[in-house]
Amino acid sequence: MAGADGRRTIEGGEILYAFHPDLAAQWTVRPGEPILVRCPDGVGGVIRDPGDRYHAVDYDRVNGCVGPIAVEGAEPGDRLVFAIEDITVPQAWGYVLVIPKFGLLQSHVDEAATRIVPIADGRVRFGGLSIPLDPCIGTIGTAPAAGRFSTVIPHDHGGNMDTTAIRKGARVHFPVNRPGGMLALGDPKAVMGDGEVCGTGVGVPIDVAARISLVKGGRLPRPVIETADDWQFVASADTLEAACRLATEDLIDALVRAAGLSWTDGYMLASLVGDLRISQVVDPLMTVRMCIARRYLPAIDAPA
Amino acid sequence: MAGADGRRTIEGGEILYAFHPDLAAQWTVRPGEPILVRCPDGVGGVIRDPGDRYHAVDYDRVNGCVGPIAVEGAEPGDRLVFAIEDITVPQAWGYVLVIPKFGLLQSHVDEAATRIVPIADGRVRFGGLSIPLDPCIGTIGTAPAAGRFSTVIPHDHGGNMDTTAIRKGARVHFPVNRPGGMLALGDPKAVMGDGEVCGTGVGVPIDVAARISLVKGGRLPRPVIETADDWQFVASADTLEAACRLATEDLIDALVRAAGLSWTDGYMLASLVGDLRISQVVDPLMTVRMCIARRYLPAIDAPA
Repeated sequence: MAGADGRRTIEGGEILYAFHPDLAAQWTVRPGEPILVRCPDGVGGVIRDPGDRYHAVDYDRVNGCVGPIAVEGAEPGDRLVFAIEDITVPQAWGYVLVIPKFGLLQSHVDEAATRIVPIADGRVRFGGLSIPLDPCIGTIGTAPAAGRFSTVIPHDHGGNMDTTAIRKGARVHFPVNRPGGMLALGDPKAVMGDGEVCGTGVGVPIDVAARISLVKGGRLPRPVIETADDWQFVASADTLEAACRLATEDLIDALVRAAGLSWTDGYMLASLVGDLRISQVVDPLMTVRMCIARRYLPAIDAPA
Repeated sequence: MAGADGRRTIEGGEILYAFHPDLAAQWTVRPGEPILVRCPDGVGGVIRDPGDRYHAVDYDRVNGCVGPIAVEGAEPGDRLVFAIEDITVPQAWGYVLVIPKFGLLQSHVDEAATRIVPIADGRVRFGGLSIPLDPCIGTIGTAPAAGRFSTVIPHDHGGNMDTTAIRKGARVHFPVNRPGGMLALGDPKAVMGDGEVCGTGVGVPIDVAARISLVKGGRLPRPVIETADDWQFVASADTLEAACRLATEDLIDALVRAAGLSWTDGYMLASLVGDLRISQVVDPLMTVRMCIARRYLPAIDAPA
């Protein structure tokens, strides 16, 4: 099925609630083929009214993702680049949830709370405040080499990274661990802060205009976000400190591999111009990204 | 002693290596008095050559601070606002150090390394790269109500927060815990990334043009940075997660106190437009800041 602008539309199918090595493609695309991915909201549409509450996170049934999308020719050791050309919000409202036993300040929270917020003219209304839309994709990843990861969990395959930088204009690089790569995405937000402290942004469905390209032999240990300005090395781990270590190691490896620095010089440069940023502090693992301006690191691959 | 532009110059005296309740003023200033604080580098000038190494952090003798500066009329329960009007670097070089058993990736480091980097025309040269100067104050704080904190340690009084946002144009709000407040500062960097992953930025001396004003009764639990665009609630704790909790609690308290939100609405708003950012991950405690644009929180005090 092709969208109005000739993009192939990817929607529906069997919703995916876990990333694992045996994912079977529901769609197969050519590298660079224009697609429009229609993602449902992160709670499967069950929150529609302030009286609808979310009393606990069911790790088997939230952040449902559309996919897997296989990319023709993708083989383990390659990488996929998911280029986000546009994200639109096809709904005039979104939800914000406080969920018991979830969120950064869960010790303060006794009961569930839901707020339905209107969306109009590119803005979310929150009481008397008007917040510009800045939609992002909360969960996106490829099939892992091993293990089974609920769509609530971020890990080296991507998954629930809840990273605001995965927005319009970003190119998100993923490891290919299994033939086809098997990309899937969901858990959209109309707007969210770095940290996602209460456990949600403004949950909505989104339509994502994208193309997936392929870098043969471009193996990566973990996802990397490319923006107009910088590279962001994303890592998730049990603690923020452990995630910071992984993301910093990945940056230094790229400085050594692609820019020819010694490891020690890479470590020093990371300390001078690398910015560790928090993505989220509420999922079962913590996610950070180590960011460096492209003027200090033009490419992440070794020179040819 | 007055500087060329009529500012009172504060320099020398006995260098301070710990914040504690019994600090005695070496200078006393009037609220709003223009001052120029000359800070020595963070290692007391012992690193001048690539052959000079720093083999271990001596918690009693680094990050030497200039102060204490008492502010006339400051009493416990007030707050001081340190307004940074300018920071200049009066030296044509700086140091970057890798120190064994210190820094985020210390398990990779066997021996000390020193790099001396030239500074000219507002830029640091690092190999073939040219990095714009963006000087910040690594250690700045007031006397704590209790306890003794080496100038390597950040805590609720401020101290070694290693926060890039403490730069020209920022107004940094501190709790006054003891008469006069007893502000001191040091540990300057010519440039540094968020995280300060190797354990140092580019160490240099700096001259800080500032004024310290007083908010009577403006009690704060921890430092808050005010910029042209946002408020940044700074917190330090044993782990990044614990620091994130404190900083988020402080933001929500301000949203409740100054903007009249319910706690739950404040928590949700913090999740939508609050950005948790990493300051540093290498000092004995970890430091983060929770940032919110001023259009969502015009002031941090309750309306009169």
